Amino acid sequence: MSKIDFDETLTSFDEVVRRPSTGSRRFGSDDPLRVPAMHDVIYPAVPFPSARIFREAGEAAIRRLVHDQHERLRDSPVGALFPADEQRFRAAVERSEDFFVEMLGGPDVFTSTRGQPALRERHFPVSITEADRLTWLDCLAQAMVESGFPASCHEELWNWVEPLSIRMINRRTTMYAVERLPFADYPRFRKGIHHD
Amino acid sequence: MSKIDFDETLTSFDEVVRRPSTGSRRFGSDDPLRVPAMHDVIYPAVPFPSARIFREAGEAAIRRLVHDQHERLRDSPVGALFPADEQRFRAAVERSEDFFVEMLGGPDVFTSTRGQPALRERHFPVSITEADRLTWLDCLAQAMVESGFPASCHEELWNWVEPLSIRMINRRTTMYAVERLPFADYPRFRKGIHHD
Repeated sequence: MSKIDFDETLTSFDEVVRRPSTGSRRFGSDDPLRVPAMHDVIYPAVPFPSARIFREAGEAAIRRLVHDQHERLRDSPVGALFPADEQRFRAAVERSEDFFVEMLGGPDVFTSTRGQPALRERHFPVSITEADRLTWLDCLAQAMVESGFPASCHEELWNWVEPLSIRMINRRTTMYAVERLPFADYPRFRKGIHHD
Repeated sequence: MSKIDFDETLTSFDEVVRRPSTGSRRFGSDDPLRVPAMHDVIYPAVPFPSARIFREAGEAAIRRLVHDQHERLRDSPVGALFPADEQRFRAAVERSEDFFVEMLGGPDVFTSTRGQPALRERHFPVSITEADRLTWLDCLAQAMVESGFPASCHEELWNWVEPLSIRMINRRTTMYAVERLPFADYPRFRKGIHHD
């Protein structure tokens, strides 16, 4: 696979679908149409978190956070993506806990036994849409706020998982760019606002 | 949505997965990793066919081609993506015939009633993988060869549908770039080779 040359004409599906229609095109003429090359999602850079989160929150709070997120995921529209069998569900949650513990600065409890994260590849067997990502993120945000995860760690954690989660999307359902959810604008993190 | 700035560091998932491993990375340090922005599929330019195909093949041969392709699709691994109901299946085939007739230079029998093609958008309700595309293309290639579609039109037709079909993929199952199938290398079009 040779390196792709990006030229100035490379547009995104998002731009194409937002562009005002230029009227009907005539197909099958003797001067036929050439539709230019396009790209779809640009997966933004992912700033991994520092060890500060592990130091400030501690292992127990990280495990509780992931556990609580998964209790919410189970009852959410993406619940069917997780194992129905209780033992297999618990094993999946524990793997996810291990992943978070290590990524946030704790001991090497994930990569030493399971290898590099390669999260996009690991998720290919399951169809994950843009909406599934939003659900996953919101279950995490709920758990962050309601499980007593230190508020001092919310922004750094979110700034990692928000772009990271875009890489799990493997089933596109729209021409539009994937939605970004900046920490400062996410309703669950706004103080003094109550949500159910 | 502002225009995306492509910088020199933007790599593809394909490049990342082919790159030799640089050993294990340490996560959760005080100098944390920043994974750079990436892209996935680059959808190549699509050269639409000229009216020559309609002139040389004629409407009946174009309709027979699409009909025969769909008989093969029905018995293929993508058969379940088409309506099981006979009447709805026939209606889908007829819409596809109309599309081909107009795109290849015939009368305006598709866009006048159904609007601009917008094929990627039309296919979003159905999950289409890289393998599904290969099946669709191969059923068309079989029909081109075995239904008496004029050999003089094979290459121009293929050079349109091969890149066009990449735009129907909406379910990724691999990090690798989408396979290209150049006309000159596609076994079914090589003279003197028999396939079943």
